[in-house]
Amino acid sequence: MKADPTEQLRHSWEANAGAWVEAVQGGAIPSRRLATDAAILRAALAGSPRSALDLGCGEGWLTRALAERGVDVVGVDASARLVDAARLRGGARFEVCSYAGLVEDPGRLAGPFGVVVCNFSLLEKDLEALLTGVRRRLDPRGRLLVQTVHPWTASGGADYRDGWRTEDFAGMGGGFAEAMPWYFRTLESWSHLLSGSGYTLSGVEEPRHPETGQPLSLLLVARPVP
Amino acid sequence: MKADPTEQLRHSWEANAGAWVEAVQGGAIPSRRLATDAAILRAALAGSPRSALDLGCGEGWLTRALAERGVDVVGVDASARLVDAARLRGGARFEVCSYAGLVEDPGRLAGPFGVVVCNFSLLEKDLEALLTGVRRRLDPRGRLLVQTVHPWTASGGADYRDGWRTEDFAGMGGGFAEAMPWYFRTLESWSHLLSGSGYTLSGVEEPRHPETGQPLSLLLVARPVP
Repeated sequence: MKADPTEQLRHSWEANAGAWVEAVQGGAIPSRRLATDAAILRAALAGSPRSALDLGCGEGWLTRALAERGVDVVGVDASARLVDAARLRGGARFEVCSYAGLVEDPGRLAGPFGVVVCNFSLLEKDLEALLTGVRRRLDPRGRLLVQTVHPWTASGGADYRDGWRTEDFAGMGGGFAEAMPWYFRTLESWSHLLSGSGYTLSGVEEPRHPETGQPLSLLLVARPVP
Repeated sequence: MKADPTEQLRHSWEANAGAWVEAVQGGAIPSRRLATDAAILRAALAGSPRSALDLGCGEGWLTRALAERGVDVVGVDASARLVDAARLRGGARFEVCSYAGLVEDPGRLAGPFGVVVCNFSLLEKDLEALLTGVRRRLDPRGRLLVQTVHPWTASGGADYRDGWRTEDFAGMGGGFAEAMPWYFRTLESWSHLLSGSGYTLSGVEEPRHPETGQPLSLLLVARPVP
């Protein structure tokens, strides 16, 4: 474990890459199977974008799904091992690039993109520079989609304020070598992050469990402020 | 009790007017005292609006607070008894008008308003026609503020879907003669209502308990789509 949570966050993805690929491709995360995969795909395809960026693509399932539907899409991830796994499955373009690398040189992304998708991939504390950089690669009429854990469910109603939390991957299959720090945000904090990065919210969705009705994620649809 | 919840909702405000005035003016609702009164006042005054409409003003505390701060404000409520109480305290203009009356003839409102405030006053099921009508009386650069119960807290995490609920006013002091039906909306449903009525969300706030950090309300800041 590294002392700096941001460092440990990045490190955990390399250490857990194999287990993560198995968990996603084996359907080991019930909420994804039940609701959130379909929700982000439907939201990404709304408005029939020609081009897309899958930011924090991981092993690339969503990038491939968009490519299969005719979208000109690139998947980007900071983990070289995850991008290796994505390329092995193929079906779309994949590139290794850290968020810090994108902030430094947003020109590394082509674009402009009709839609930029962050599917459970905004886990760091400081994101404003990244989202501001992404906005410059977004079509002026394009959309940024952020799917994340549902803040009210994730907090368990107990400690409802921004801060680092730890994911231990219990119940996602075995093989996870390291715990992953991730930064919890309240709904208000997500709203501030987006407006501070030059976006306005055009929609808020709550993909829900088909039987219990409980929200399984929060899906924010944002547009760049002209 | 009336069979139709919308009818009973309107009726309950007449029946409970006296108890409500006492509860609000006596500070009997802790969440208002702790956070939500200050939150709506601060949000209403942001951007220094010249004019305001307090929609569903009740006994008029917020209308008076805005008038005291130099805003040209009118408070409107469907309950004649509540408007009587508001006029008795004075300090601002108050008018009796039902939401149905406003939908029928939005010209009854002056305007354009710099801000329209709905402070825990959107309790009916069908609100799109009202909010669409209000939008036409809003300055193009103005804001609509909706403060409401926090959907997650209000649902108790149990039954998270739109539908009629019942408020029995327990813990708000005595004298409430009738239960009040009110329509619960999920966060997603509030988002749909606003976009369907021609607004875009420019902010989402969650006024919180100063000690526990628990959200005590949801405060939506919306702007008319040009």
